[in-house]
Amino acid sequence: MHGLMSELYPICRSITGKGVEKTLRIIRKHVPIKIRRIPTGKKVFDWTVPQEWNIQDAYIRNSKGEKIVDIRKSNLHVVNYAAPIHQKMTLAELKRHIHTIPEHPDWIPYVTSYYEKKWGFCMAHRQFKGLVNDTYEVKIDSRLSDGHLTYGELYIKGQSEEEVLFSTYLCHPSLCNDNLSGVVLSTFLAKILGGKALKHSYRFLFVPETIGSIAWLSLNEEKLGNIKHGLVVTCVGDPGKMTYKRSRRRDAEIDRIVSQVLKESGKPHETIDFFPYGSDERQYCSPGFNLPVGSLMRTPYGRFPEYHTSADDLRFVSPEYLADSLMNYLKVVDVIEQNITYANISPKCEPQLGKRGLYSPKGGDKRPPVTGILWVLNMSDGTKSLLDIAAQSGLRFEDIKAAADALRKKRLIVECERLHTAP
Amino acid sequence: MHGLMSELYPICRSITGKGVEKTLRIIRKHVPIKIRRIPTGKKVFDWTVPQEWNIQDAYIRNSKGEKIVDIRKSNLHVVNYAAPIHQKMTLAELKRHIHTIPEHPDWIPYVTSYYEKKWGFCMAHRQFKGLVNDTYEVKIDSRLSDGHLTYGELYIKGQSEEEVLFSTYLCHPSLCNDNLSGVVLSTFLAKILGGKALKHSYRFLFVPETIGSIAWLSLNEEKLGNIKHGLVVTCVGDPGKMTYKRSRRRDAEIDRIVSQVLKESGKPHETIDFFPYGSDERQYCSPGFNLPVGSLMRTPYGRFPEYHTSADDLRFVSPEYLADSLMNYLKVVDVIEQNITYANISPKCEPQLGKRGLYSPKGGDKRPPVTGILWVLNMSDGTKSLLDIAAQSGLRFEDIKAAADALRKKRLIVECERLHTAP
Amino acid sequence: MHGLMSELYPICRSITGKGVEKTLRIIRKHVPIKIRRIPTGKKVFDWTVPQEWNIQDAYIRNSKGEKIVDIRKSNLHVVNYAAPIHQKMTLAELKRHIHTIPEHPDWIPYVTSYYEKKWGFCMAHRQFKGLVNDTYEVKIDSRLSDGHLTYGELYIKGQSEEEVLFSTYLCHPSLCNDNLSGVVLSTFLAKILGGKALKHSYRFLFVPETIGSIAWLSLNEEKLGNIKHGLVVTCVGDPGKMTYKRSRRRDAEIDRIVSQVLKESGKPHETIDFFPYGSDERQYCSPGFNLPVGSLMRTPYGRFPEYHTSADDLRFVSPEYLADSLMNYLKVVDVIEQNITYANISPKCEPQLGKRGLYSPKGGDKRPPVTGILWVLNMSDGTKSLLDIAAQSGLRFEDIKAAADALRKKRLIVECERLHTAP
Repeated sequence: MHGLMSELYPICRSITGKGVEKTLRIIRKHVPIKIRRIPTGKKVFDWTVPQEWNIQDAYIRNSKGEKIVDIRKSNLHVVNYAAPIHQKMTLAELKRHIHTIPEHPDWIPYVTSYYEKKWGFCMAHRQFKGLVNDTYEVKIDSRLSDGHLTYGELYIKGQSEEEVLFSTYLCHPSLCNDNLSGVVLSTFLAKILGGKALKHSYRFLFVPETIGSIAWLSLNEEKLGNIKHGLVVTCVGDPGKMTYKRSRRRDAEIDRIVSQVLKESGKPHETIDFFPYGSDERQYCSPGFNLPVGSLMRTPYGRFPEYHTSADDLRFVSPEYLADSLMNYLKVVDVIEQNITYANISPKCEPQLGKRGLYSPKGGDKRPPVTGILWVLNMSDGTKSLLDIAAQSGLRFEDIKAAADALRKKRLIVECERLHTAP
Repeated sequence: MHGLMSELYPICRSITGKGVEKTLRIIRKHVPIKIRRIPTGKKVFDWTVPQEWNIQDAYIRNSKGEKIVDIRKSNLHVVNYAAPIHQKMTLAELKRHIHTIPEHPDWIPYVTSYYEKKWGFCMAHRQFKGLVNDTYEVKIDSRLSDGHLTYGELYIKGQSEEEVLFSTYLCHPSLCNDNLSGVVLSTFLAKILGGKALKHSYRFLFVPETIGSIAWLSLNEEKLGNIKHGLVVTCVGDPGKMTYKRSRRRDAEIDRIVSQVLKESGKPHETIDFFPYGSDERQYCSPGFNLPVGSLMRTPYGRFPEYHTSADDLRFVSPEYLADSLMNYLKVVDVIEQNITYANISPKCEPQLGKRGLYSPKGGDKRPPVTGILWVLNMSDGTKSLLDIAAQSGLRFEDIKAAADALRKKRLIVECERLHTAP
Repeated sequence: MHGLMSELYPICRSITGKGVEKTLRIIRKHVPIKIRRIPTGKKVFDWTVPQEWNIQDAYIRNSKGEKIVDIRKSNLHVVNYAAPIHQKMTLAELKRHIHTIPEHPDWIPYVTSYYEKKWGFCMAHRQFKGLVNDTYEVKIDSRLSDGHLTYGELYIKGQSEEEVLFSTYLCHPSLCNDNLSGVVLSTFLAKILGGKALKHSYRFLFVPETIGSIAWLSLNEEKLGNIKHGLVVTCVGDPGKMTYKRSRRRDAEIDRIVSQVLKESGKPHETIDFFPYGSDERQYCSPGFNLPVGSLMRTPYGRFPEYHTSADDLRFVSPEYLADSLMNYLKVVDVIEQNITYANISPKCEPQLGKRGLYSPKGGDKRPPVTGILWVLNMSDGTKSLLDIAAQSGLRFEDIKAAADALRKKRLIVECERLHTAP
């Protein structure tokens, strides 16, 4: 995953334009995403698909002809979606268009101006303070023109039309935790799921943030009823603990599944309530949809100082934490796939386990311990899923699952027809 | 308020009689209350309106002709509602009719005998211990006669018939926190509300405790359906922290409103559950009515040592704390008036705030910060009031209100027809 | 109770056989239980009534003819339900059939083999380690033959068919806390209840664990609807604190009753959630029945080191703790009998208590304090039982009961027709 991230890092992305297209083509080398395009001007709910922004060059040159700022050194130097300019100006005038972070004098901030036509540069505060009076040549060779909003979509068909949505965003230029980490984790998760036999269908979206998810929702309203669970994938590569932001429903099955997986991880973690700012869960959880979509992160956006600066780079994200995050996502998928609701078909008293070889106090010989067996038998009244039983018993989901498998083989429980414990 | 209290302090009040009448006439100088009278003998539910009690004089004279106890020095010296007597007696006989507080030897207790015909005196324990053997002349020139139970009522008409009830009691003689503080706060609150354009109607009751509220309820049953919120106003002038006693419903809108106001005050405060003893909330919250009426106090009755003694005087209650209590009552009224439920009319995804000038990360220029805007948009699905949104978001009610106002002006939300979040 | 326990202690019991029969005949000297028999081979749900197990003799003899292990010294020496054997063998061979507890080298373990035909002995680990190479004569003169499963049942008819079930098990040989303590407490509780006028009917079961309760449930399905409350009586004689294991319903009336009784005891106690292993509540609370049956114990099975060893003897259980447990059971019965739901028939405002002699701030003269009176009046709206009122008010159940009695005598409240606050 870190290798793919290194490949994507230098590309200058924005919400539209060639950077996104290029990024999607690289992802397509790994998983068979469809690259979709929506034309400029298309109405998507309250919004309009904007023009395509592309940039050829951008620099600030001093009177000696030296480029003191150059987009070729860092994409972040130019305000994202900046209007074009080519002009000479005094230092005083220039300064009004320069963004810095005084608290972190060596970091370049990431600034955008999507819906207001402005130009501007970003630089390290230390360099800013050293600027001398001079006449500067300022050039931003950008172009806004009709074109497309581009995004990637991968649909992995499972046995059921009920689907799980993983949504990540790729509009940020050279920033790693926010959000190349989400892009590469989604890519590898999709690659792994592509090779499995799955009960649910899985949909992966690689969209520009906000406008991308709004556009997708607008064009796919009729499919939304299939979405049973969803996660926004972001900030999954930093060293912080796992953090789960619940869906707006607060107690959707996905909320309980992720809580269980994090609890069982045995590692520090935190679960926080939904709030209506953040990433694309804002759109999926808007009141008109209220989809069961949460967000599984490490340190959330805005809570790490490197957020939206040049310090959110390839060193800030490590292979180790990316792998740990992926592992958690895979466990979530495991529980989604296996969270079946059973009915005990001899619910009056316990069935005699001994004569079926199931009465094994400590398990072993591939037999699960009898405690799990008894929990599944006692709780399986058609209203409680294996997840519910794991949560109530305090046992691990995999142990409850093993007990259920053993009981199912002995025909003591039967699967209820998809009794999802909906909120 | 403290000035009005000083004016009311010397009057000898009881549940009936001239003291109440006189008190109400002074209140009427401030606010246009109606003075209402119910005749002795009138049945009010299980009770009967009692006779009118009036007292001319009361004293204990020793054999030297010195008045050692004199009602002109303190109303509390005579048991309230005492039967008349004029007789000479020994110290031993007298002592059986004298009440004191040994733990507070300089304080005179407040004792009543409404529903049993008895006579008695109250005095400081220190004086009591100094009484010498003598023949004492005991005189209570009181009279019980048919007359009226008198109370004050003020109805301030608002846009809606839905009304808010403030009930306070004025049957106590020279006692300040319990309950002249409630009388004067109610008077000034009524004065302020009288000058405002209001959505709700407001009703203020100045009644003798227990029998007064029972009588009012008995005579006004058909109006009770209009009462949407209510508070019993008592003990609002002492230095203790604000205390809210919930309504019997526990989670009525008024309960949540007062909790929010106290939380936002940033000052120490306490919320306690309903219990069926205390003041007139006992009647409003009796199971046959179960009205949403709580009680907002500082230190509750019975929890401060000065309670029902001569030490609950004009010094115990200070203007500062009366003003602080009034401020909290005014904030409660503010929230009652402004707790609207809106519906987001473009609930699918977020509307584009930037093009409407609403996307302002930190607010300013009269624009509320975008966080409040996003909370209101996300939660306004027709079931959650601004109070609910404030409680869930952790933001202040006034900030949520400002966000809602901005959104309403841009026609992004509409007011739902009075969707009170009833319990 | 301890005397009866001493009488029952030496008997060699198992799930079937003469030991159970003998035990029941001794119990019948105290209370008129019916001794019931179910023939071997009878199908009871998923189970089959097993053969009767009886044992004449069992020992291990060394080559000198000394009995080094003898069932006449302790019933626990032989694996319960062991298959017969009479054979000479080496120490090595013998050892494979011997059970010990290395951590407690002087204790003999209790081991069973009900549903697998095996033979074995149990002994102190210290003795085991001292065994020398020798040829041992091993004899178990046991016999498995068609016969009966035997259990005891006592039905005490009350005014109502609604019944309370006390179930205890008697299949353990010489073990006291688990579970002769349950047998003797049940016997004495039945004796006391037999002499009382009762509203509910009471059923006592003395059954072999698991197979006994399964058999009873299987043969009495049509009566189960009458069971309103139930407790499994076990581990009630050790010095530990009282522990209540909730029914599977978690908030059944019996669960709330026992919680209230333990809270009012003022002694340390613990309430734990239902779990589907343990004793016969596993069967009563199986999902097909889900009866409101909990278990009131002192230290639960498995949590005291003497559990299932020879150290769970007559010294481990003391008369003092048996008596304390019985007292708690009797209080539970008291609350069951007296937990009435009333309706206040003058629910609009408070009735005038003074004129009925009920306004007594501190009680006395057989009058309950007015606080209890006011709680009962305020809460008695036909939906809350006296137990609910006690729990909400923080007052003791007996005080609430006394207040209700006083109010009922004054015809201020009336009993609602059996409004059990069902879960």
